[in-house]
Amino acid sequence: MKKKLTLKQIAKELDVSVSTVSKALRDSVEISEDTRQKIKAFAKLYNYKPNNIALSLKNKKTKTIGVIIPEIVHHFFTTVISGIEQVANKRGYNVIICMSNNSFDKEVINMEMLANGSTDGFILSVAKETQQRGDYHHLLEVINQGMPLVMFDRVIDEIECDKVIIDDTIGAREAVQHLIDIKCKNIALITTVDYVSVGKLRTQGYHEALVHNNMKINDDLILKVEDFDHSEEEIRKFLSGKDIDGVFAVNEHFAIYAIKAFHENGLRVPQDVSVVGFTNGELSKQFIPSLTTVSQHGAEMGAQAARLLIKKLENDEGEEEPYETIIVETSLIERNSTKR
Amino acid sequence: MKKKLTLKQIAKELDVSVSTVSKALRDSVEISEDTRQKIKAFAKLYNYKPNNIALSLKNKKTKTIGVIIPEIVHHFFTTVISGIEQVANKRGYNVIICMSNNSFDKEVINMEMLANGSTDGFILSVAKETQQRGDYHHLLEVINQGMPLVMFDRVIDEIECDKVIIDDTIGAREAVQHLIDIKCKNIALITTVDYVSVGKLRTQGYHEALVHNNMKINDDLILKVEDFDHSEEEIRKFLSGKDIDGVFAVNEHFAIYAIKAFHENGLRVPQDVSVVGFTNGELSKQFIPSLTTVSQHGAEMGAQAARLLIKKLENDEGEEEPYETIIVETSLIERNSTKR
Repeated sequence: MKKKLTLKQIAKELDVSVSTVSKALRDSVEISEDTRQKIKAFAKLYNYKPNNIALSLKNKKTKTIGVIIPEIVHHFFTTVISGIEQVANKRGYNVIICMSNNSFDKEVINMEMLANGSTDGFILSVAKETQQRGDYHHLLEVINQGMPLVMFDRVIDEIECDKVIIDDTIGAREAVQHLIDIKCKNIALITTVDYVSVGKLRTQGYHEALVHNNMKINDDLILKVEDFDHSEEEIRKFLSGKDIDGVFAVNEHFAIYAIKAFHENGLRVPQDVSVVGFTNGELSKQFIPSLTTVSQHGAEMGAQAARLLIKKLENDEGEEEPYETIIVETSLIERNSTKR
Repeated sequence: MKKKLTLKQIAKELDVSVSTVSKALRDSVEISEDTRQKIKAFAKLYNYKPNNIALSLKNKKTKTIGVIIPEIVHHFFTTVISGIEQVANKRGYNVIICMSNNSFDKEVINMEMLANGSTDGFILSVAKETQQRGDYHHLLEVINQGMPLVMFDRVIDEIECDKVIIDDTIGAREAVQHLIDIKCKNIALITTVDYVSVGKLRTQGYHEALVHNNMKINDDLILKVEDFDHSEEEIRKFLSGKDIDGVFAVNEHFAIYAIKAFHENGLRVPQDVSVVGFTNGELSKQFIPSLTTVSQHGAEMGAQAARLLIKKLENDEGEEEPYETIIVETSLIERNSTKR
């Protein structure tokens, strides 16, 4: 018997993308008839079978929830997982976690693998690359086959499914309003590039807060970090020599790097500059000065996502229930980095 | 057809432990003949099938590695996972992660689930509760069925399998030696209760360093934290009023709590007291003063574990290879918390 190939191997053998193989095996019209036939013939030759979700669903319940997250070395995602675990375990479900490492291909491969009889449904925060490419065929596939999917945090507007989000815009607006309330006049924003949806929404919140208070938006005070690996350096350069008395950063690392840059320049936080972050991780709590930050309540988001998924999984009536979007409210946690 | 039950549900229905059900279904002589028959009859009635690992192995390779870790909100484990992912992906394997939450039952249930055709082999760091109970039947079962298992960090001496460890004793000894070298005379140890193997080994390293330098071991200077949730409080009380000029803590949180307690008491770190931690996480890097710590090189441990597992999985020769134990060397990273 020939060795069973994986999706990735087929893609490599035929020199096409994982996405093309995946779509061709589902007869997607996006792929030319010719390519489709070639891929299907090759898959057949090597005994590759795409998952047959509908079939596996009918035959057995796995009592397992598949969770796909973009990265794991990230406090927010680990708290979300804790929340999912807590609800899932109480309701008798196991949890399996896979990481996309923000890669589109890995996201597709992981979903393919887990959908193949390992899980009853998915909880997902999409990879950066998926957002960038706008290719959602793997998500639509899962939904179309009747496998419930709940998206959290980084969700995709165009996909209809249950969602758990925070209102990033409001969270950011409140953070910037807090800086305005304590009399900051020149408030910088340290954010990500726009294709990261949460970065974009938090940037919008910054804009709204300034406009609402009749303050000017000064593009010189906005840094869109390109390269996470060198963000500390980028932030140091950006802040150097600027007349700033407040900073809103879209995550806790950016906030800590800003504080360190100010220290190096002989500025004190909070006496000379106030800093607010986003995500209430260990760093925010333990750093000196402790960091004022927007808490996303990750555990609560995870718990809600698990509840939504289990509700769909246990809806035996067969009636189609409408999709829900739960907005978990953020809260501003005031600590020493903004104490005037 | 009757609904398929899970291991946990059977245990609950029959009012016995998960471990008893799991053992009974494998005909373990540890369980009385009577109980075994009762459990097997019940399982049969409800159509429960224990996993048949040998069978699934013969029929298909999943190209998936199962990773079971005790907890996820823990920097060390997330770096190990990164290391596993990196090697696994390069070699064409997917990675599935489950958490035991340090519960024996969850560890058994997760292994049962993943062994059931979802993975080719396991990488595992055992749950605290498993160490405490000394019940390893689920691990032996997996190994006996020919499914490779690699243990890392928290390993079990009695189980023969591939292992990736650090030498916790040497790591700790070097940390304490560093404190002695910078002229600390009264060195406190903040550790965990002894049944956590790494805590015990690091405690031993502390002892060895003192003895090697002809210093007395003073039990008054040793705190074995009982309750992680209240460790900050325990540490504050322990340090209050003690004449201490050096602290070795077995993780970075304990170290940070110690520094904070000293600050509250008007002592300066490192001028009055030096502090060394264990685990090179974000807190250690970003805290002010930055923390001198023992790096376990988590990513390297994960990479080695993945290499060992894949080596066993791809050993098609059928020859039995001896088990290996790889010791990843720790290194002391000197930072500001011990700068004299």
